[in-house]
Amino acid sequence: MSQKMVRAERADGIKSRRNILNAAASLATTEGLDGLSIGSLAEHIGMSKSGLYAHFGSKEELQLATIETAGAIFVAVIIEPTLLIDDPLERIRALCSRFLDHVERRVFPGGCFFASVSAEFATRPGPVRARVAEFQKGWMAMLTELIAKAQALGSIDAREDPPQLAFEINSYLLMANLAFVLHNEDFALERARTAVRFRLDCARATPRSLHRARSVRAGGNGEKLRAPSA
Amino acid sequence: MSQKMVRAERADGIKSRRNILNAAASLATTEGLDGLSIGSLAEHIGMSKSGLYAHFGSKEELQLATIETAGAIFVAVIIEPTLLIDDPLERIRALCSRFLDHVERRVFPGGCFFASVSAEFATRPGPVRARVAEFQKGWMAMLTELIAKAQALGSIDAREDPPQLAFEINSYLLMANLAFVLHNEDFALERARTAVRFRLDCARATPRSLHRARSVRAGGNGEKLRAPSA
Repeated sequence: MSQKMVRAERADGIKSRRNILNAAASLATTEGLDGLSIGSLAEHIGMSKSGLYAHFGSKEELQLATIETAGAIFVAVIIEPTLLIDDPLERIRALCSRFLDHVERRVFPGGCFFASVSAEFATRPGPVRARVAEFQKGWMAMLTELIAKAQALGSIDAREDPPQLAFEINSYLLMANLAFVLHNEDFALERARTAVRFRLDCARATPRSLHRARSVRAGGNGEKLRAPSA
Repeated sequence: MSQKMVRAERADGIKSRRNILNAAASLATTEGLDGLSIGSLAEHIGMSKSGLYAHFGSKEELQLATIETAGAIFVAVIIEPTLLIDDPLERIRALCSRFLDHVERRVFPGGCFFASVSAEFATRPGPVRARVAEFQKGWMAMLTELIAKAQALGSIDAREDPPQLAFEINSYLLMANLAFVLHNEDFALERARTAVRFRLDCARATPRSLHRARSVRAGGNGEKLRAPSA
């Protein structure tokens, strides 16, 4: 048993509960949240089953607590650091960038916790699926609201449909996560970064701003052009 | 046993193997391919476990045969009907449309078989994951190749990067599938249709074609404008 584990075992109940749940959130992305039996988790963190039962009465309770923990990690790693960004368009860019970074840094070893668990529970109605779906809806609502704010400020074209644009942006993130985890394709994250940049540039492009973008381009931007407004 | 009886029994065997695998492919999208034990499948199709063992020696053999069956269904429902479309850009549109239709019609009750199984096996290396990844790579390669062909014909802007565009298009399909299955959101499919249309319109848009698109728009297309080239 490692020093770290020994310390965790000696710590008070709250801290130990947190450690258990952190381990559970990680393990869920590789073994599945349903594969997360109290027995397997106990073995993984080197704790007795009865010790775990003292914290969680049932498998579902453990699963729901694990989702809350993963949600708190998601908020701390991706959302909180962007709270001070005033400009909504810049904040969308920062959220996407942080999401992709958290996949790349393997904050969870099996990629995005919510993508992983939502795929697993997609066809199994119940409290677990409901909570995961709620979390994802919150994320989409946040993106949608930021897009609407950016429209109000004139930095995103008023003709864009906010939930539609949020859908497209989130698509790239989800696809990159899956390709990174399934195929170990690092470049999938770069593709998503490119896609987000391009799509948000499109969204900014009113005929007038397109005109400007084109002039800037003609003025000597040597980058490979990917699309009219890039 | 007469020749005729042997032939009949063999035919029954093939037919029954096919029925088993069709059921397995469906069940895998709701229960998971790993949840697909020979026991649960036997119960689901009302067959004895020993009857099933006559067809498949092991769980992995059953899983791999199920993937092949799902692949054949995918090809028959989505790819084959587009084989006679000469224009590569039109063929890409048809493939996307057919993919979304197959999700909507619940060809597999839990949505796209490959999205479902690849999420399940993303972090479990082995022959199952390898085969699913291979199938998905084939799909991406097909989209990429069609984009390159459309570029050669001048219907997609030469400045688009084919694997990047394939990534973006496939993102919408994957996201729609997940939202449809997880949230029962029918409109997710419509969002993906809109996204594919918009992105391919962008991809066609050279400065000159953008100019044309804008003139058409100014000429009385009353639709809500979603972006500069829509």
